[in-house]
Amino acid sequence: MRRIHVIGIGAGDPDQLTLQAVRALRDTDVFFILDKGEVKSDLTQLRRDLLRTHVPEGTYRLVEARDPERDRAAGGDAYSPAVGDWRSARAAIYERLIREELADGERGAFLVWGDPALYDSTLAILQEVLDGGTVAFEYDVVPGISSVSALVARHRTGLNRVARPVQITTGRRLAEGFPRDVDDVVVMLDARQAFRRFADEDIDMDIYWGAYIGTPDEILISGPVREAAPRIEEARAEARERKGWIMDTYLLRRHRQGD
Amino acid sequence: MRRIHVIGIGAGDPDQLTLQAVRALRDTDVFFILDKGEVKSDLTQLRRDLLRTHVPEGTYRLVEARDPERDRAAGGDAYSPAVGDWRSARAAIYERLIREELADGERGAFLVWGDPALYDSTLAILQEVLDGGTVAFEYDVVPGISSVSALVARHRTGLNRVARPVQITTGRRLAEGFPRDVDDVVVMLDARQAFRRFADEDIDMDIYWGAYIGTPDEILISGPVREAAPRIEEARAEARERKGWIMDTYLLRRHRQGD
Ligand SMILES: C[S@@+](CC[C@H](N)C(=O)[O-])C[C@H]1O[C@@H](n2cnc3c(N)ncnc32)[C@H](O)[C@@H]1O
Ligand SMILES: C[S@@+](CC[C@H](N)C(=O)[O-])C[C@H]1O[C@@H](n2cnc3c(N)ncnc32)[C@H](O)[C@@H]1O
Repeated sequence: MRRIHVIGIGAGDPDQLTLQAVRALRDTDVFFILDKGEVKSDLTQLRRDLLRTHVPEGTYRLVEARDPERDRAAGGDAYSPAVGDWRSARAAIYERLIREELADGERGAFLVWGDPALYDSTLAILQEVLDGGTVAFEYDVVPGISSVSALVARHRTGLNRVARPVQITTGRRLAEGFPRDVDDVVVMLDARQAFRRFADEDIDMDIYWGAYIGTPDEILISGPVREAAPRIEEARAEARERKGWIMDTYLLRRHRQGD
Repeated sequence: MRRIHVIGIGAGDPDQLTLQAVRALRDTDVFFILDKGEVKSDLTQLRRDLLRTHVPEGTYRLVEARDPERDRAAGGDAYSPAVGDWRSARAAIYERLIREELADGERGAFLVWGDPALYDSTLAILQEVLDGGTVAFEYDVVPGISSVSALVARHRTGLNRVARPVQITTGRRLAEGFPRDVDDVVVMLDARQAFRRFADEDIDMDIYWGAYIGTPDEILISGPVREAAPRIEEARAEARERKGWIMDTYLLRRHRQGD
């Protein structure tokens, strides 16, 4: 039987790999690395570095493939109606990789950024491949430190306040309004800086923002959203210009009377 | 200057420690371990085992203290109006530990279950101690794999569905109703099995439940909540009886037309 590890590798700091992930890396015969094109090649490099650091050379094969292009019309937004097609295109690639590059009895691995549980399609795609019935394999999941955990650790704050909930959502959703029933909201995949709409409102809200968290380029900014928003916009534009791409996440914390 | 590491140690599987956490453990002179009384002594033992595995003996001191009792009237619920008093009592203990047991220039550490960002008061308490102004120190936070990440990894599912939000909340909150604006909800600190109310309702909802996740006692149950709820109730009662305490977490996933 083929076996596949889906390994969460953390969101930027190579030290945020778990011991379980290191073991899974060393247990792997074939690593599948999907390159998302130029802007993300830094991230592909980080994966190669992880392997070099933790797995003895000569004990594994590296199979690189090009990720299907996502519909460009979707622009900065990672999810669009095209996501279904994109997922199927990806499933076809995964299916071929597993069938052609992994022999019976071998172990393959996908290295997933952060935690495979958060805004990542690897698990759904593997399930789609299995459901297709053209290739059989077992798989397991190694959780990773998400950018969400890394963000709040760097800001030395919690995700939730005592006995209260926290929601994790996308920039697109936040642009439709602050979610109900919750005052602590983490936002990912935000190309539009949806936090800005709260900068002009008369509400008491803090933001804890981070870009390239855990990497040498890390930037952290926090404060009342009214005051921090312009600083974030500026830092974000400057960094994006310099590096050519940006990954950022933030926590919005709304204060209410009595807090 | 004194320095303190707040180290997330994962939620049960000692292999889910990160390399960063191992480094922080080895960098520590004094470990503060707060015992929560009999029921949780297994968890205190797990901390001692971690130290034995990762830190050379003789390189550190272990300072154990008894956690203040939480108001018993709060019953199974971890949070109650008494939580404020309890936090202050705890701050007084932390203050004394840091002031008396940690010399200037030394490094102390608190080992926090799971991820320090989720339903844990260590960060707030340290800030309270600092604000008190009686002892000065610096501190940093090492994120950990939370029971939430561990839960969904074991069930090989994601926290959120494509482009959709996820909320993390408590059993007490869920008992007040399913939160609005979200269909994926993770529930922690649930002594009342609040999921049961959805078992009788005519809704299409799945549950992914886990107890003692990552430990040899791990139990996993999933399925439509209507069908899985009685199985969970039974497994939970049996395990609780046998071990004397239980830690469980679950994800509720509501399906809507068009999903
Ligand atoms: C497709 S999602 C994948 C998330 C990943 N699975 C995780 O657990 O962090 C990508 C989003 O994660 C966030 N992100 C990932 N790594 C980050 C980092 N190092 N710094 C800031 N944000 C990051 C950004 O919001 C980005 O838009
Ligand atoms: C006070 S909170 C601390 C959470 C912790 N900081 C984390 O990141 O998992 C305790 C709650 O976490 C959950 N929990 C912690 N460890 C668990 C485990 N090994 N299995 C199942 N649930 C767990 C349970 O819901 C429990 O009521």
